[in-house]
Amino acid sequence: MEDQTIRVELTNSKKEKPDENHLEFGRVFTDHMFIMDYAEPIGWHDARIVPYQPLVIDPSSMIFHYGQSVFEGLKGYRTETGDIQLFRPEKNFQRLNHSNDRLVIPQIDEEFVLEGIKELVAIDRDWVPHTEGTSIYIRPFIISTEPYLGVSPSKHFKFIVIMSPVGSYYKEGINPVKIAVENQYVRAVKGGTGEAKTGGNYASSLKAQEIVEKEGYSQVLWLDGMERKYIEEVGAMNVFFKINGEVVTPQLNGSILAGVTRDSVIQLLKYWDVPVSERRVSMQELYEAHQNGTLEEAFGSGTAAVISPIGELRWNGEHLVINNGEIGELSQKLYDTITAIQYGKVEDPFDWIEKVNLKSKVNL
Amino acid sequence: MEDQTIRVELTNSKKEKPDENHLEFGRVFTDHMFIMDYAEPIGWHDARIVPYQPLVIDPSSMIFHYGQSVFEGLKGYRTETGDIQLFRPEKNFQRLNHSNDRLVIPQIDEEFVLEGIKELVAIDRDWVPHTEGTSIYIRPFIISTEPYLGVSPSKHFKFIVIMSPVGSYYKEGINPVKIAVENQYVRAVKGGTGEAKTGGNYASSLKAQEIVEKEGYSQVLWLDGMERKYIEEVGAMNVFFKINGEVVTPQLNGSILAGVTRDSVIQLLKYWDVPVSERRVSMQELYEAHQNGTLEEAFGSGTAAVISPIGELRWNGEHLVINNGEIGELSQKLYDTITAIQYGKVEDPFDWIEKVNLKSKVNL
Repeated sequence: MEDQTIRVELTNSKKEKPDENHLEFGRVFTDHMFIMDYAEPIGWHDARIVPYQPLVIDPSSMIFHYGQSVFEGLKGYRTETGDIQLFRPEKNFQRLNHSNDRLVIPQIDEEFVLEGIKELVAIDRDWVPHTEGTSIYIRPFIISTEPYLGVSPSKHFKFIVIMSPVGSYYKEGINPVKIAVENQYVRAVKGGTGEAKTGGNYASSLKAQEIVEKEGYSQVLWLDGMERKYIEEVGAMNVFFKINGEVVTPQLNGSILAGVTRDSVIQLLKYWDVPVSERRVSMQELYEAHQNGTLEEAFGSGTAAVISPIGELRWNGEHLVINNGEIGELSQKLYDTITAIQYGKVEDPFDWIEKVNLKSKVNL
Repeated sequence: MEDQTIRVELTNSKKEKPDENHLEFGRVFTDHMFIMDYAEPIGWHDARIVPYQPLVIDPSSMIFHYGQSVFEGLKGYRTETGDIQLFRPEKNFQRLNHSNDRLVIPQIDEEFVLEGIKELVAIDRDWVPHTEGTSIYIRPFIISTEPYLGVSPSKHFKFIVIMSPVGSYYKEGINPVKIAVENQYVRAVKGGTGEAKTGGNYASSLKAQEIVEKEGYSQVLWLDGMERKYIEEVGAMNVFFKINGEVVTPQLNGSILAGVTRDSVIQLLKYWDVPVSERRVSMQELYEAHQNGTLEEAFGSGTAAVISPIGELRWNGEHLVINNGEIGELSQKLYDTITAIQYGKVEDPFDWIEKVNLKSKVNL
């Protein structure tokens, strides 16, 4: 990308901000958005921050037909001193480029895009809520916009970032969830798109999710698509199990998303000298550990909930209650530590925090 | 759907039509489009034919993030008498509803939508080309439009139909293609979305396609995602092999698209008393048939090309040349017969043809 400037057009009509005590996830968006365009042979160009507005897109645009798209999700946190900081944002843009490669979407300049997002956060700083547990959710995404019905990689794309103030995932403290092991539907298989953050993975998950919700379960636990034996992910999160003092999580095998929170959990456990391993974990192994009393904790990890304890697993008609359906000690410690780092309440020994310079170059 | 009327708003500025002798696939669109909206709890509503125009969609709309979408593809053919006719359109709308079910998209009224498309074709009748081998490509699609970042089924959708005049797939006669058997990437797996016509399946196929194109192959042949042994599809077509006088094609196992042309080929073969079976076909079986001289023909089937003969298969470094790289007798007969039925040049013993009433209710 030759032109590394970001054009800024500020809104004339600021929107009313929502009540910080009743924030829903992803329904209200800030006053501005970041956009840049891609066209062959120019490459990425015309990076700009503009008023939040609808996209005007031809109905033949590829995104509506062939799903060539990727996205990311990260958060900005308000500290007690009023600063705003991001959590490991460089990991999100590394992963976005990894997803781009799988989806045949041109690479982005990770540093430039991160600067653009920090500029956007600075401009919409008043949208970052102050209430305990709240944050600004940042959604970068890329869509294919060439107006052409041939099945081939698009020659036009848009990279867009929108932001939404969000409440605490746990309004009344952390409640362990009930999870159903999925035996019929498959999320991804080796050779597919499971390790890319692309729309199709989420579209394909809706059916299984709908079925288990009706049965009283909050999410599904996906098994591998080849043998239907090995654990992959839970819902849209990575998953961990504490068995006889050791924490295990499925290895990154090509069909699992490499979660930023997953990586942070592993680093923290190593820092604490808690045994942790990334390896194949079968449902049969979990069942046996439950039967002999060594399945001590289970939890999902992700940007939205950080740590989501699992209180019950349903598998083949069996109901495995874990840790009496209560949050485990280690799950709680991980949640407390990661959120404390995110909100700047404790030291950050891993250099995970990236501060946003609120003295934006833009004159507000 | 309670209100079964279609509102019509005609364009004031008709576009110039492209040269019928140089039509590209899917780049130029007709003067009008069909749209209807879905919202809970109203259901599908406000069916309308309006001037072809860009969509104005919020950047938070689910289609840009989670890929909840389905589509179809069919053609309208100009007969020698100037009539326009469709080929088995009811099959496309049955399949669209099947795809809808898998993607958690509300069912459409198949008969009503077919009436809407016939009305659209009648209004844009002058866009249906007359030149030999040309047709109007009709693209119905549904996109999720709720402005919400939660991963859950959308509560708002748009059903849209756009149309594009297209040339003959074979400008200089049918040329058999070279196909590479794909060993690394997987299109779909049982339990996934392979039998639904949804964007994610096409997005995930782009990478493998890009690689083999650089190696001089026109498409990939997908193997099953579990054992990587059994034939699934070729590119975006179904596939058939004639082995020792019998035609075989992979059975519909949950990960293969149920092609309309595929079904038509099977019906025609039965009508002609040619042995045909739908069953598992392994690459090893094809290899052995090739070695002992019984792999007589191979071809893909789909709406775009109708019949696409395969002249060479690359598999594990082996190059299997089929029928000396020439189109086989049966492939040619299938192509000739299906296209003759589509263009109304021969009788239609199967009741496949649906005529469009060109006396549209609309006053042009």
